[in-house]
Amino acid sequence: MSPTLPVALSDLIAALGGDLLGGPELRIARIAPLDEADEQSISFLANPRYQAQLGTTRAACVIVAPALAEAAAARGAAIVTPDPYLYFARLTQWWAARTRPARQAGVHASAVVSPDARLGQGVEVGPLAVIEAGAVIGDHARIGAHCVVEREAVVGEHTRLAPRVVLGYGCRIGARGLVHSGVVIGADGFGFAPSRDGYVKIEQLGNVSIGNDVEIGANTCIDRGALSDTVIEDGVKLDNLIQIAHNVHIGRNTAMAGCGAIAGSTTVGANCTIGGAANIIGHLNIVDGVHITACTLVTRSITEPGAYSGAYPFEENSSWQKNAATLRQLHTLRERVRALEKK
Amino acid sequence: MSPTLPVALSDLIAALGGDLLGGPELRIARIAPLDEADEQSISFLANPRYQAQLGTTRAACVIVAPALAEAAAARGAAIVTPDPYLYFARLTQWWAARTRPARQAGVHASAVVSPDARLGQGVEVGPLAVIEAGAVIGDHARIGAHCVVEREAVVGEHTRLAPRVVLGYGCRIGARGLVHSGVVIGADGFGFAPSRDGYVKIEQLGNVSIGNDVEIGANTCIDRGALSDTVIEDGVKLDNLIQIAHNVHIGRNTAMAGCGAIAGSTTVGANCTIGGAANIIGHLNIVDGVHITACTLVTRSITEPGAYSGAYPFEENSSWQKNAATLRQLHTLRERVRALEKK
Amino acid sequence: MSPTLPVALSDLIAALGGDLLGGPELRIARIAPLDEADEQSISFLANPRYQAQLGTTRAACVIVAPALAEAAAARGAAIVTPDPYLYFARLTQWWAARTRPARQAGVHASAVVSPDARLGQGVEVGPLAVIEAGAVIGDHARIGAHCVVEREAVVGEHTRLAPRVVLGYGCRIGARGLVHSGVVIGADGFGFAPSRDGYVKIEQLGNVSIGNDVEIGANTCIDRGALSDTVIEDGVKLDNLIQIAHNVHIGRNTAMAGCGAIAGSTTVGANCTIGGAANIIGHLNIVDGVHITACTLVTRSITEPGAYSGAYPFEENSSWQKNAATLRQLHTLRERVRALEKK
Repeated sequence: MSPTLPVALSDLIAALGGDLLGGPELRIARIAPLDEADEQSISFLANPRYQAQLGTTRAACVIVAPALAEAAAARGAAIVTPDPYLYFARLTQWWAARTRPARQAGVHASAVVSPDARLGQGVEVGPLAVIEAGAVIGDHARIGAHCVVEREAVVGEHTRLAPRVVLGYGCRIGARGLVHSGVVIGADGFGFAPSRDGYVKIEQLGNVSIGNDVEIGANTCIDRGALSDTVIEDGVKLDNLIQIAHNVHIGRNTAMAGCGAIAGSTTVGANCTIGGAANIIGHLNIVDGVHITACTLVTRSITEPGAYSGAYPFEENSSWQKNAATLRQLHTLRERVRALEKK
Repeated sequence: MSPTLPVALSDLIAALGGDLLGGPELRIARIAPLDEADEQSISFLANPRYQAQLGTTRAACVIVAPALAEAAAARGAAIVTPDPYLYFARLTQWWAARTRPARQAGVHASAVVSPDARLGQGVEVGPLAVIEAGAVIGDHARIGAHCVVEREAVVGEHTRLAPRVVLGYGCRIGARGLVHSGVVIGADGFGFAPSRDGYVKIEQLGNVSIGNDVEIGANTCIDRGALSDTVIEDGVKLDNLIQIAHNVHIGRNTAMAGCGAIAGSTTVGANCTIGGAANIIGHLNIVDGVHITACTLVTRSITEPGAYSGAYPFEENSSWQKNAATLRQLHTLRERVRALEKK
Repeated sequence: MSPTLPVALSDLIAALGGDLLGGPELRIARIAPLDEADEQSISFLANPRYQAQLGTTRAACVIVAPALAEAAAARGAAIVTPDPYLYFARLTQWWAARTRPARQAGVHASAVVSPDARLGQGVEVGPLAVIEAGAVIGDHARIGAHCVVEREAVVGEHTRLAPRVVLGYGCRIGARGLVHSGVVIGADGFGFAPSRDGYVKIEQLGNVSIGNDVEIGANTCIDRGALSDTVIEDGVKLDNLIQIAHNVHIGRNTAMAGCGAIAGSTTVGANCTIGGAANIIGHLNIVDGVHITACTLVTRSITEPGAYSGAYPFEENSSWQKNAATLRQLHTLRERVRALEKK
């Protein structure tokens, strides 16, 4: 999506605020990183580490913090704002709103919408979507092509389901959410009782309850609870290909990078970050403000905020082979050191 | 899904058996864990560790083993049964059957069903499902909205495909199966021959063959075999986001938690359990009764039943940094210990 | 899919070349591994390790390298070719073309195709597919059932999207590609700016650009770039359930096994192989010719070709418990060894 027209910096400032140093009449055609920017680009400098790029970037305008205002203005236009990264985020939103096609409220003729579903004002339902009886779609919500919103499910106001999302029966998502393609909300949790004749299914009788301002990445799965609900609180951000098992509870504003999993009945606190491919086993409790780095397996509850890790350090394969083989004898090695110490 | 009506304990016992101690006229509105139960709840005590909760739960009735019958009956109604967890599983099934909407046999008008497909009695085909020529759908099977059942594929009796499942051409699933949304059965296995001009595709000519009573979790993938079939035996349970590569063979009643993978041509025995995010490389043989814990990478065949593990232990990040750095010198450390021992 | 008719070796040679030793009139009904072959099978011997199977296989004909021509011919028909595995790959392609149903060009009546989309010659659009305005579908491309090709997206000539693929707005895939079911190309990258009121979304304004001859496995996700595009070069092969984050760049002919992830803005070179469930963190640079083994987490840029590893070695659970516990004290252990050495 490239914008059809360049935008004057004065228009941008009028919409987003910030102190403009330099030419309000400059016209911006794209947003770009400092090192890819050209004379029609606006860029931003959020990390002081990249300050040297101020000297080499071709950007027409750079968004900077007050401390860098002088340096930025010396080379071209600058927008000064306390948090350049946050300003950049808002700029992308403004840009997307300007350059993307307008929404088209209405139900596509090919969609299969139950007469017993309740659709709010300004709702958009894409081609071949299915909305079952008892479902409630909030005002201005958008249901993409090929979505399935099952019976009694609820979609909040202004929430968007991208094409091909399944929102299972009785599951709810709040307002201003964004659910990407391939997401499955409300598949059965994985529960079986062993018996002499094999596993006996435990029907999953709970639902999934998702708060406001939640984003869920492509092909992520959130299972319904066994008896009570799986709960995702307001502001949670989940990346792609994540597995959230039954009866997990994730607190406000926690963010989780792709490919990880949280096993059944675990509670994760608010304002946590969980790195890519990290896994948390079931029935644990993780307090607020915990940061788990990529590929860590969390096997015990965490009672103190902080950063936790557990990935094997990678190295050249031949070294790894030696070290990994030795690791299998680590306990013995410790015994040998103990023996030496006793001598 | 909350039931529309409370159920008398006498009705429940009539359907599921067990010895009832206390009031048959008590009415149950929900199934709940001991610590969330209220006066209209039935609960269960399967793990003696939680016996203390018998003293505090508000549940109207608790399902217990004979050893706890007296303690349970002292505080309210109790159902006594040799295996409370199994009883609970059956109770959830009975509950689901009572409280969920009745099935609606028939083919939705929007489905695209080939006249050369064969549908059994009482089959349900949801909106916008596609069933190609030569496909066979067993009696009372349910094909959810947006499913694609390709040519010559076979769905067994009473098997249910949730919305949006792909069952590839020539692939088969047996009776009483349950396949969750987003599952892809029969994509090509990952096979290429290297050549000077890049990779040359090895067409995958096998199918996928799945037994009876198999459950497959959301967004899980089972690839078709290269020459012969990928095989999933009766009673296997696969959780969400699992990858089963071409020509894998999984034995009866093996269960696998989410996000793991089994690479090509590996055979896993019967009655195994594979923890979440565990991976097994290709061309291995795992015997019956093997239990692999979460996040383990299995790199050799396993010839003895038992439990196997290989996850890095997580810890506070600053400790991990020191220990992980040292791990890169572990082999050297052993040499140093050896040198000390020689002195 | 079993072929309807056996094929004479002479026909096979006429199509694929190679030197035939033995009966051109022999008829082949299937392709099979040496140990599963019967008298109507053709098999191949690519790995000298399996040479002993030449003595026991029942295959009618074996594809071998020149060095094994004599041994193979002594037991039956043989096809001699410099690279038997590559020959086998081409044989599977020829076989598939003979035995699979003919393509059916045309747009299925149930598909929803914008009048403002541009479809090339011989294009096939399956049932219930959606193609939005401005999309361009190259000659002889195949768009499977339930695919969604969003506005301005481009599909190259002879590329096939299996059923239920999402190709997001503005995203492009080149010629001769194969995209399996459940793939999501062009979901938003995972980008947010923290603020006092929670995360603020960074709209993802880039696209995904995919070269020619690329295969993408089931349920894999490739996110659109934040400002510029995510790029997958020619000849790349991605297995199932892979996560490619925004602004990743993957070089020519790199292959990646299932369940791994590459985090944002990382560049991977050409001719790399990335094992199953391996992860690469963001903002790294991996040079050409790097081989990463399964379950490795790459946390630094790699500047030299070679093999790199980082998986924890699995072992029997009770040993693992001891060794993993000791690992938490590894740094201390090294200090103790140092102290002993000083004495």
